Amino acid sequence: MDYRKESLKKHGEWRGKIEVACRVEVDSREKLSLAYTPGVAEPCLAISADKEKSFELTRRWNTVPVITDGTAVLGLGDIGPEAGMPVMEGMCALFKAFGGVDAIPLCIRSKDTEEIIRTIELLAGSFGGINLEDIAAPRCFEIERRLKEELDIPVFHDDQHGTAVVTAAALINALKLVGKRKEDIRIVINGAGAAGIAIAKFLLKMEVGDIVLCDRQGILCAGDRQLRDAKAEIALITNRGRQTGLLADAMKGADVFIGVSGPNCVTKEMVRSMNRGAIVFACANPTPEISREEAFEGGAAIVGTGSSEKPNQINNVLVFPGLFRGALDVRATDINFEMMYAASEAIASCVKEEELSSGYILPYAYDRSAHMAVAAAVAAAARRTGVAKL
Amino acid sequence: MDYRKESLKKHGEWRGKIEVACRVEVDSREKLSLAYTPGVAEPCLAISADKEKSFELTRRWNTVPVITDGTAVLGLGDIGPEAGMPVMEGMCALFKAFGGVDAIPLCIRSKDTEEIIRTIELLAGSFGGINLEDIAAPRCFEIERRLKEELDIPVFHDDQHGTAVVTAAALINALKLVGKRKEDIRIVINGAGAAGIAIAKFLLKMEVGDIVLCDRQGILCAGDRQLRDAKAEIALITNRGRQTGLLADAMKGADVFIGVSGPNCVTKEMVRSMNRGAIVFACANPTPEISREEAFEGGAAIVGTGSSEKPNQINNVLVFPGLFRGALDVRATDINFEMMYAASEAIASCVKEEELSSGYILPYAYDRSAHMAVAAAVAAAARRTGVAKL
Repeated sequence: MDYRKESLKKHGEWRGKIEVACRVEVDSREKLSLAYTPGVAEPCLAISADKEKSFELTRRWNTVPVITDGTAVLGLGDIGPEAGMPVMEGMCALFKAFGGVDAIPLCIRSKDTEEIIRTIELLAGSFGGINLEDIAAPRCFEIERRLKEELDIPVFHDDQHGTAVVTAAALINALKLVGKRKEDIRIVINGAGAAGIAIAKFLLKMEVGDIVLCDRQGILCAGDRQLRDAKAEIALITNRGRQTGLLADAMKGADVFIGVSGPNCVTKEMVRSMNRGAIVFACANPTPEISREEAFEGGAAIVGTGSSEKPNQINNVLVFPGLFRGALDVRATDINFEMMYAASEAIASCVKEEELSSGYILPYAYDRSAHMAVAAAVAAAARRTGVAKL
Repeated sequence: MDYRKESLKKHGEWRGKIEVACRVEVDSREKLSLAYTPGVAEPCLAISADKEKSFELTRRWNTVPVITDGTAVLGLGDIGPEAGMPVMEGMCALFKAFGGVDAIPLCIRSKDTEEIIRTIELLAGSFGGINLEDIAAPRCFEIERRLKEELDIPVFHDDQHGTAVVTAAALINALKLVGKRKEDIRIVINGAGAAGIAIAKFLLKMEVGDIVLCDRQGILCAGDRQLRDAKAEIALITNRGRQTGLLADAMKGADVFIGVSGPNCVTKEMVRSMNRGAIVFACANPTPEISREEAFEGGAAIVGTGSSEKPNQINNVLVFPGLFRGALDVRATDINFEMMYAASEAIASCVKEEELSSGYILPYAYDRSAHMAVAAAVAAAARRTGVAKL
């Protein structure tokens, strides 16, 4: 099937992938008087006296906006806020279908960091958490950092952390198959945008051996004075061997390649130069860094991609519905590393040891039990780390 | 029943009067690929090429936020954005139940006019129309004026115009019963806030005889140098007889009294001083300007109030669901007077001539056929006045 052509047709038929449903009956004078005036004055006053009651008396406890500025939508780039809407609506549909979360798509017509932050702060009283989506780097870092600091509800930038959580889950299972310990491996990440940097930080917190990040210019190395901001920062804590050169140099002897970059930048020869039992996650979409077939020809032991057409899709759909479900269930005030790592482990554990194979390292994105496992693990981690209000 | 106590209990059970529903199936790889990646890229690109397509390929065409700053909620005043949420959610429930509109409650944590305008502008690409709610005067005037000017989707401040539309509907039918023509009557409006001024402007456009507005200091008269802004402006076009004095003076010989003020400010004697066939709409909530019983004792022919417990509830629930349904159905770019007056006439016409009586001048708020009649009339008026895109 030509998914893109068929999807356009379906979108025209659906005219919206989500809608609002009314949870109360309002078909009599009495029912109207309870759901609306005059009765509604009482819950209003109760919340006015204690704002926390907004989590008990309204839908706030279960409501999360999916917010974008439309500047980094899929692999399409800056297509504008309105054009981002089909993706945001899709996420909202998945939030509900897999996490039971009431998610609302909001597209912001601004690329100004301060203006985006302010807009979200002003609306935060309506929500139980905030999901940021498809906002371009570097502004996405500052937006998330400031909102996490200033709001007392969980804030999550899916492109960074959703990707990191599911990549880590894939890595946990892949390492079991090739019989390596995470502490012993060297990982090359190609792509030093929001996803690449977030994956690097996440894997470092997991205490993997070493990580070398590359961008289009090659290896990121501490002390390179051309590096700025997030790249300069991540260079300080990665690449402990102070390696320089190009992606091909980085990949020599590496155990894991993670691509969150662009099409066809990795060759068979580069895979062949990796350590035995090479793990290749080529996640660029729609065209990966190297095709699954070529990676195997290069000697890869395990290959994952971003494609739903191939085995081992490394898909952040596995993360956000359950992650927010768990966070909302315990009124978490934050989404911290422990919660995210609990999600990675829960996803990995959904593939039973006896089923684990080079073609099956992750559960399917539409497997409801995986999302429920994530939710339970995240809620438990939130309680354990003291960020749960319930 | 003690509606307020029972409502608080119910709100704790409901934990939200609306929720998000998923309209697509996502329980297989194929379905996920159509609703989300990779298929979703195609509708994104289609909208990027032509923003108007966002009305065809996403839920935008049917989505309206109910936006408040929480400063004029019911008769409760400035209780804050979170505390306004039960009312906003209630409106959203009614929007769906009676108009099929997907409405989303948004509470803004700001009382700054410019900041509220900017926030709404930045979000407008997500919506098919904007419903402003319970924002205090005078800032509500400027917010609505500017947004109507700057946005190409309909903007409606319910507290002003919803109230005006339903009051006009009640007046149309009341005048039939007392056998007076609208051109011949003198109307006294007590309360010169957002609702009072909007009603006055609306009735003037309907070409009623004369209107005298009163606030707590008494009659508003052109040339009174104590009057500022909206009050000074409305004084110029009302009170053609340049009457001065108190509310009691205004009411002498008046045909209609409309109260959108506070409790118990009208006496039997004041009603008794009105013209024969006096129409009294005492809409203050929860305690009216004068009780229905006292108004009749004062000789009123027809009495309406804001209470759902009494006959003739003058309730803007009759307006907003159908009004937006009609506007969205034809992709109206504005909600103009002709559309609103069409709504008034449609509401009035829902009470058949043979059923019309002093205790039944308006359809019930939960009468679905009334909302459908409003939608049809509004859509037709939008087309007639050239603001419909469909």
